[in-house]
Amino acid sequence: MPAAPTPLVIGIAGGSGSGKTTVSETILQRAGPELVAYIQHDSYYKDLSALPPVQRAAVNFDHPNSLETEMMVEHVSLLRNGQPVDVPSYDFTTHTRNKETQRLEPRPIILVEGILLFTDPQMRELCDLKLFVDTDADIRFIRRLHRDIQERGRTTESVIQQYQATVRPMHLEFVEPSKRYADLIIPEGGYNEVAMDVFMARIQAKVREYQSYTPKGN
Amino acid sequence: MPAAPTPLVIGIAGGSGSGKTTVSETILQRAGPELVAYIQHDSYYKDLSALPPVQRAAVNFDHPNSLETEMMVEHVSLLRNGQPVDVPSYDFTTHTRNKETQRLEPRPIILVEGILLFTDPQMRELCDLKLFVDTDADIRFIRRLHRDIQERGRTTESVIQQYQATVRPMHLEFVEPSKRYADLIIPEGGYNEVAMDVFMARIQAKVREYQSYTPKGN
Repeated sequence: MPAAPTPLVIGIAGGSGSGKTTVSETILQRAGPELVAYIQHDSYYKDLSALPPVQRAAVNFDHPNSLETEMMVEHVSLLRNGQPVDVPSYDFTTHTRNKETQRLEPRPIILVEGILLFTDPQMRELCDLKLFVDTDADIRFIRRLHRDIQERGRTTESVIQQYQATVRPMHLEFVEPSKRYADLIIPEGGYNEVAMDVFMARIQAKVREYQSYTPKGN
Repeated sequence: MPAAPTPLVIGIAGGSGSGKTTVSETILQRAGPELVAYIQHDSYYKDLSALPPVQRAAVNFDHPNSLETEMMVEHVSLLRNGQPVDVPSYDFTTHTRNKETQRLEPRPIILVEGILLFTDPQMRELCDLKLFVDTDADIRFIRRLHRDIQERGRTTESVIQQYQATVRPMHLEFVEPSKRYADLIIPEGGYNEVAMDVFMARIQAKVREYQSYTPKGN
């Protein structure tokens, strides 16, 4: 009798505006949400309620220390071992955690996404497949500019200021060097259909493993 | 009734010493040689028998013009349409074509390999999956040095001279910019087992398409 299948943990990293969320959402939609546990590093920002609000805004949210990565590592380990987890939910306006958590059930595919994912050795160890979405810096900046103006009501100057103060330096110091740990590099992100077809084939192989293991399949 | 399956054309490019031949051979072995038509750009070097031998040695063999890419494009098109081809065989000592050719039968997987593969627009158009093997330049040089000393009896100085005279300039001018056309970038080459598992899943999906199309499968 074959061994019980274990989930496939796919890590997706890449700079701000690289298109990694599009890659994640494409995989989620194509595989079917019922087969994928989707977990984002952003949900694990540290709760800053102990800091006075004026100090919260001064925190560098592009630095790995702003995230409670140990908790995410524990959650991914639990999911991998077939146990559900309660994912924190973060309020980006107050930089604090909401009281509500989101229950996430284990699934054959565990999709973990975050800019700084591969900077953590334990996180790298947990990923069976490490994908890095690589997009030119100018295109990434333009995407971020559009998003922050349209969705967050920011001004061009405030986007530029934040980009130069923290986004870009942290990218060069942490994100770009972490590309070295990737198993595969995806140019252009989620609109790269050829790459998506390749990943879907790998995911479907894992899903078939699960399907053929159930009594129904024997 | 489903449409007749068409072969999957996989193009593998990357600099000298990047590990692309290891990637090709790993795919060939794991998929099974009976399912793969393997074709190398190197077989299509131009026949220089019209040139006096002293002028042959002066040709820049790292430049796209040294290859008869149109013939390879025609051959890959024929294989894709289910027809066999006769691949030329090249004598690297005299820089001429041998009289013998190698008959290559069409297969579900057509694997095309070459440093300069993605510099040709028609070749890019023919590839369903364009993979670029990306390895740091120092590691590539060290591999080339080892290979040329051990397998070709060259001296360190002659390897360095050729590297600086043609290999490196042609890499910067043609190979590196062609990376932009890749669907996926493979760090480290054929020893990257995680990447190989992903490609094998894609290949096996194509092979299953062929198997389920034959009368036996229905």
